Amino acid sequence: MSTMRGVTCDGTTIRLRRDLPGPSPAPGEVELTVRAVGICDTDLQLARGYMGFRGILGHEFVGRTAAGRRVTAEINNACHACPTCLAGLANHCPNRTVLGILGHDGAMADRVCVPERNLHAVPDGLDDREAVFIEPLAAAFRVGEQVDLGPGVALAVVGDGKLGLLCAWAARLAGARVTLVGKHPAKLALAGEDVETRLLADAGPMARSFAVVVEASGSTTGLETALRLVRPSGTVVLKTTVAGDHATSLAPIVIDEVRVIGSRCGPFPQAIEALASRAIDVRPLIGAELPLDRAEEAFRLAATKGARKVVLLV
Amino acid sequence: MSTMRGVTCDGTTIRLRRDLPGPSPAPGEVELTVRAVGICDTDLQLARGYMGFRGILGHEFVGRTAAGRRVTAEINNACHACPTCLAGLANHCPNRTVLGILGHDGAMADRVCVPERNLHAVPDGLDDREAVFIEPLAAAFRVGEQVDLGPGVALAVVGDGKLGLLCAWAARLAGARVTLVGKHPAKLALAGEDVETRLLADAGPMARSFAVVVEASGSTTGLETALRLVRPSGTVVLKTTVAGDHATSLAPIVIDEVRVIGSRCGPFPQAIEALASRAIDVRPLIGAELPLDRAEEAFRLAATKGARKVVLLV
Repeated sequence: MSTMRGVTCDGTTIRLRRDLPGPSPAPGEVELTVRAVGICDTDLQLARGYMGFRGILGHEFVGRTAAGRRVTAEINNACHACPTCLAGLANHCPNRTVLGILGHDGAMADRVCVPERNLHAVPDGLDDREAVFIEPLAAAFRVGEQVDLGPGVALAVVGDGKLGLLCAWAARLAGARVTLVGKHPAKLALAGEDVETRLLADAGPMARSFAVVVEASGSTTGLETALRLVRPSGTVVLKTTVAGDHATSLAPIVIDEVRVIGSRCGPFPQAIEALASRAIDVRPLIGAELPLDRAEEAFRLAATKGARKVVLLV
Repeated sequence: MSTMRGVTCDGTTIRLRRDLPGPSPAPGEVELTVRAVGICDTDLQLARGYMGFRGILGHEFVGRTAAGRRVTAEINNACHACPTCLAGLANHCPNRTVLGILGHDGAMADRVCVPERNLHAVPDGLDDREAVFIEPLAAAFRVGEQVDLGPGVALAVVGDGKLGLLCAWAARLAGARVTLVGKHPAKLALAGEDVETRLLADAGPMARSFAVVVEASGSTTGLETALRLVRPSGTVVLKTTVAGDHATSLAPIVIDEVRVIGSRCGPFPQAIEALASRAIDVRPLIGAELPLDRAEEAFRLAATKGARKVVLLV
């Protein structure tokens, strides 16, 4: 088995290594050759020690099978045998590993192994740089599986980063009236004409006016902002995990009988369809493409304030 | 207008005063003669400055109309004219006052004024000391309006105080399989044979096993405990407001896609029926009855660790 390159995380720093052993497929897994992989905010948090992950990063990727098919893969590797899996909650399998996040090497490498049942074909018309958005866009579509976004629902997204924009577009596609609230005029400008935008500092008059608020800021104050914007008995969807403790008053949740719903991974087929048809066009979110050999530089770039998506080409 | 006695709160202490002006009914209000009023944990928090309340405390009460009918009253005094009210959310009316909690004097006094439409008759068979539980028991029944407790749902209640016990009994009556988790063997012993009980220190093996967890501990660590007990994609119901900030990691809400639902006031008729029929027997929760003249002593008693309900007889 030949060695390969890979971006490893030891909990404090990330490093590009060139001497890693190639991956060994577990039962049910196939080996893929990686073509492209995105750097996401979760990777930046993992690099700082979140989840205690040690190994190769990368969970937003496009690869190629031995037969030459372009594919991506869902990231939860479930046992499909425990009571949780049998109850239809495989994404919550207590025995699961998660690609590049929990107990399983990820795709920032020349090769990666993933469960064959997790594969999804990438349509010919969808290029690699856009296809790395399948995983985060699927997560954005997850909101619509959990909450009614039906025609005209007043929805706000807090956070004008990449995930915030994807959530805004996914909710808009589901029929919601969407307002994106953020701190950065340049990012808000990416939202497009179907999404209203508002600077956080000017959002005061919108207090208590949204049926649904999606918290996608990744900030420890995001929940507080969301609780200010949501109407009584409305719903706050938490999309981003924040490492560390929140110091937040939860009294408004009780007093206003708000529902707070955690939201994680979502439907790949819906994301693939929306990207392939350009119903959602993520090209404005792509900031830079660098070869895997420049991964350490790419991580520094991804960590700069206001960075758009950095894609590693393998 | 003759003066009257009343228990006032100035944000730092409570005081029994004997020289208060009698209440003046606002439009739509009736004046009641108070017969009995319970001291609840919210009163103890209000006395310490929660909500910035200034005025006469008391929102769990039985009174008598001018015609001699025994009654109690729902505590939210809504405008019934604003968009929130017209949307069926009168309990969340932004213009509302709340009896003895927000902008409206309460019932720890000789007389109190409440909106006539908020009145509920107290059945003859239900004595005053039990009837002061109508309001908190209605709040416990609120959970069943928000979450499916249908036959056999595995439900835990965190907190073995009065509200925890009421929530446990209300959920049991709705058909749930109920486990009450608390720190106090003497309080857990009040739960009765239809409710399983478990000391918090021994609850480890129950982690991630409940479809619904009701947080009724009033403790800043209650949410953390609830998030440990709930199963992935399960529901945590927050019943108690905690003054001040929580320092809690909310990452489990996202990772396990938990729903956290705030829960406040509930259906009075259901509570009255359950108390009158003794389907729920609150007599074990009554700790002491004192005359209104001993209100300050009664508050000290209510604030002692492990105190059961203290009822003021007017």
